[in-house]
Amino acid sequence: MGGLFGGRLRVVNVGLTAFAESIALAGGPVVDVDWTPPALGDARVGRKLAALTGAPEVESANRQAFERYLASRPILQAIAPAGEALAGMGGRTVLHAGPPVDWQDMCGPMRGAIIGAVLYEGWAGDGAAAEALAAGGGIAFAPSHHYACVGPMAGVVSPSMPVWVVADAEYGGQAHATINEGLGRVLRFGAYDGQVLARLRWMADVLMPVLHAALARTDGVEVKPIMAQALQMGDEVHNRNTAATALLLKALLPALLECGRPADDVADAVRFIAGNDHFFLNLSMAACKAMLDAAEGIAGSSMVTAMARNGVEFGIRLSGTGDRWFTAPAPPIDGLYFPGFGPEDANPDLGYSAITETAGVGGFAMAAAPAIVQFVGGSAADALANSREMAHITLGRNPALQIPALDFAGTPAGIDARGVVDTGILPVINTGIAHRDAGVGQVGAGIVRAPMACFTQALAALADAMGV
Amino acid sequence: MGGLFGGRLRVVNVGLTAFAESIALAGGPVVDVDWTPPALGDARVGRKLAALTGAPEVESANRQAFERYLASRPILQAIAPAGEALAGMGGRTVLHAGPPVDWQDMCGPMRGAIIGAVLYEGWAGDGAAAEALAAGGGIAFAPSHHYACVGPMAGVVSPSMPVWVVADAEYGGQAHATINEGLGRVLRFGAYDGQVLARLRWMADVLMPVLHAALARTDGVEVKPIMAQALQMGDEVHNRNTAATALLLKALLPALLECGRPADDVADAVRFIAGNDHFFLNLSMAACKAMLDAAEGIAGSSMVTAMARNGVEFGIRLSGTGDRWFTAPAPPIDGLYFPGFGPEDANPDLGYSAITETAGVGGFAMAAAPAIVQFVGGSAADALANSREMAHITLGRNPALQIPALDFAGTPAGIDARGVVDTGILPVINTGIAHRDAGVGQVGAGIVRAPMACFTQALAALADAMGV
Repeated sequence: MGGLFGGRLRVVNVGLTAFAESIALAGGPVVDVDWTPPALGDARVGRKLAALTGAPEVESANRQAFERYLASRPILQAIAPAGEALAGMGGRTVLHAGPPVDWQDMCGPMRGAIIGAVLYEGWAGDGAAAEALAAGGGIAFAPSHHYACVGPMAGVVSPSMPVWVVADAEYGGQAHATINEGLGRVLRFGAYDGQVLARLRWMADVLMPVLHAALARTDGVEVKPIMAQALQMGDEVHNRNTAATALLLKALLPALLECGRPADDVADAVRFIAGNDHFFLNLSMAACKAMLDAAEGIAGSSMVTAMARNGVEFGIRLSGTGDRWFTAPAPPIDGLYFPGFGPEDANPDLGYSAITETAGVGGFAMAAAPAIVQFVGGSAADALANSREMAHITLGRNPALQIPALDFAGTPAGIDARGVVDTGILPVINTGIAHRDAGVGQVGAGIVRAPMACFTQALAALADAMGV
Repeated sequence: MGGLFGGRLRVVNVGLTAFAESIALAGGPVVDVDWTPPALGDARVGRKLAALTGAPEVESANRQAFERYLASRPILQAIAPAGEALAGMGGRTVLHAGPPVDWQDMCGPMRGAIIGAVLYEGWAGDGAAAEALAAGGGIAFAPSHHYACVGPMAGVVSPSMPVWVVADAEYGGQAHATINEGLGRVLRFGAYDGQVLARLRWMADVLMPVLHAALARTDGVEVKPIMAQALQMGDEVHNRNTAATALLLKALLPALLECGRPADDVADAVRFIAGNDHFFLNLSMAACKAMLDAAEGIAGSSMVTAMARNGVEFGIRLSGTGDRWFTAPAPPIDGLYFPGFGPEDANPDLGYSAITETAGVGGFAMAAAPAIVQFVGGSAADALANSREMAHITLGRNPALQIPALDFAGTPAGIDARGVVDTGILPVINTGIAHRDAGVGQVGAGIVRAPMACFTQALAALADAMGV
């Protein structure tokens, strides 16, 4: 000891920064290495991680899953009522975001959206009756994921609501998404007043026929090139879709102008799309779902193929663990609030929109969208740092989705559950904040991290499935 | 000397970096200060610069000029034939970009564009006859600046070509610009074949009536908010106008859908605008011209109110020196070339589009548009560096035009000729490259710097005008 401290001391500190700080304060030379124990120090999971790390069958499965994700080619083909488009969705079924959850456990905004859906379908005459019907077992609930469908926030889908139909031209799969209602008082944030329901009816009665007729005049609209161009235009295609919406409208315009629907309907539809900078979000989600569906079901793969929240629990799926959800309590969101609201009003993390981050955009592509920090908080430097950090937990980069500010590097994509558990770096998600009560709506937007417990469980299950 | 070199030497090197490098190579500690003598070492101009630096009347005039630039509010109001919209433009007049130039001195692409304009107006039956007419004094030439009009590249305007009419709602001025034809073989790059002329006729016969009818249904379209939003979406609104064009189209869509012109014409017009990502450029230029016109004619102001090139000479104007152009040979462009072309094909710097840089966008706002480096060359870091560097030669920042990647700092705007002469930092300009021969068209795009001689002359003239 005397010899050690008697000589000239040069320190490398690993882990807790506080030790390095006290040496630096005393004037000593110190290099601080940012490190946390793998699996947050859980030895059991750590051993499984070690077994899966570098394992040839995992590497090979991940390569295959990632290549399928890259090769998939989502094409917007149609818009149709959910009851027709979603195979097997019959009767009084209402789909919701995130992993499975029963009515009695649901959060306020999800209940609000379900009440709205019941009223919209005419299954009940008022809010109280709708609530009683839902609570009394009169409605079948299921995650929209189980019907190949996604939707932001509450993600509620009932049979007569229109959904986008996106087909994967490479692998033949199909993904669906709800149609974006705009901001403010909207169903997906749990509002269900007359204005919300009237808008939903207009979307089914006017918007859907116009878009249907327009899409029928095209060979489909390839979605990935729109996402790619939008990343060059300051969007991350999750919480910022300003450019993507304009590009989608531009792509559909000739067909809209010649679709043969009444001119007033077309003008109203165009005005609705042009007036809602989030319109593209749901289509981005459907495209991301299609890309990730292509990567599903590869035995041994630790690639994350879904992240979704129901407002109570956060759930993920891995390519190599089939239909299982790995869940943990939904975390609170660090964000900016609309005037008059604060963290005490906020519901925990909610919605299926984290499918965008799972596919390498959203928070993962935040460096492409510095302007988004005015919506979700932080600085332009934070946006760059988030994209750079995510490269530590992903299988590769998506060369089709480039980030100009990172000198056109592809977005970091294909979350490797091993990387998350090893580094302790949690996937970053840009997201909206819903009021915790039914009937209110959006109160802000911010940033949230996926909970570690989802990834340790998933990794353990993968190791068990592989017998390691 | 012995004492100096005997002790421990710590060097601050000012100017030539080579001295610092040799010290650093020898292992000595050295700080290198990037510095060049003011006015490039011209003592006569240096003395005038010293007299103008900090002079209260210059500071006050610049404050006034800059505030008027900031406060101006350009609004797109109409589209009309140049012969009607531009006061005093009569008979066989053809306007061009840049400072005044006679036919015999004009560059190839400008001659090509003029031949095209003569054919378009029907003043001659073929190219040879058009050339003879222009060379023989049958056409009156003038800078479009003298008619409050701007146009990219050759900037050629003849009486029956449509022009945008932009009014300054704050100060009442009016600025005009040609309508963008798209890329490839187009008049402004000196092409004048049948396809070029047919497009010009369609623009006058179909596009103008549609846009006229649509604009008549609006209260005008405020241009600065579109520019501001486009800067958040990866445009610098000079060589990248992808977002701005989409935003303009979105702003005009409701009026376009209800303008009452034949549906086929409206669909064609929408397709033309949607298919030309540079469509907004000319409107951006007209708005910039309006903002800078507001700053003109302030006695004592060293603020640059115009930078324009005719392909032979580069010219600037200062607010405080009235109608005088200060010119120097147009520099070559450092850029990327289309396949099959190279620097030997390039015409020197051409066009009025540097009005955008004069107003703080284009190269000055390049940090907002990292994607543009794929068009003009360089890296994303260069784009940031250019915007940062321009802040050294500008009077302030424009808070209405923010750059997300610089944490929402306003664009550096209001070039101070004193700053240019003092620091040797030359205004950076993103620009297209025309083929040097008439009839070919665009061959690339790149970056150019305004020549110092314009600024030293202008500063000397300002000092003379003020009697210092």
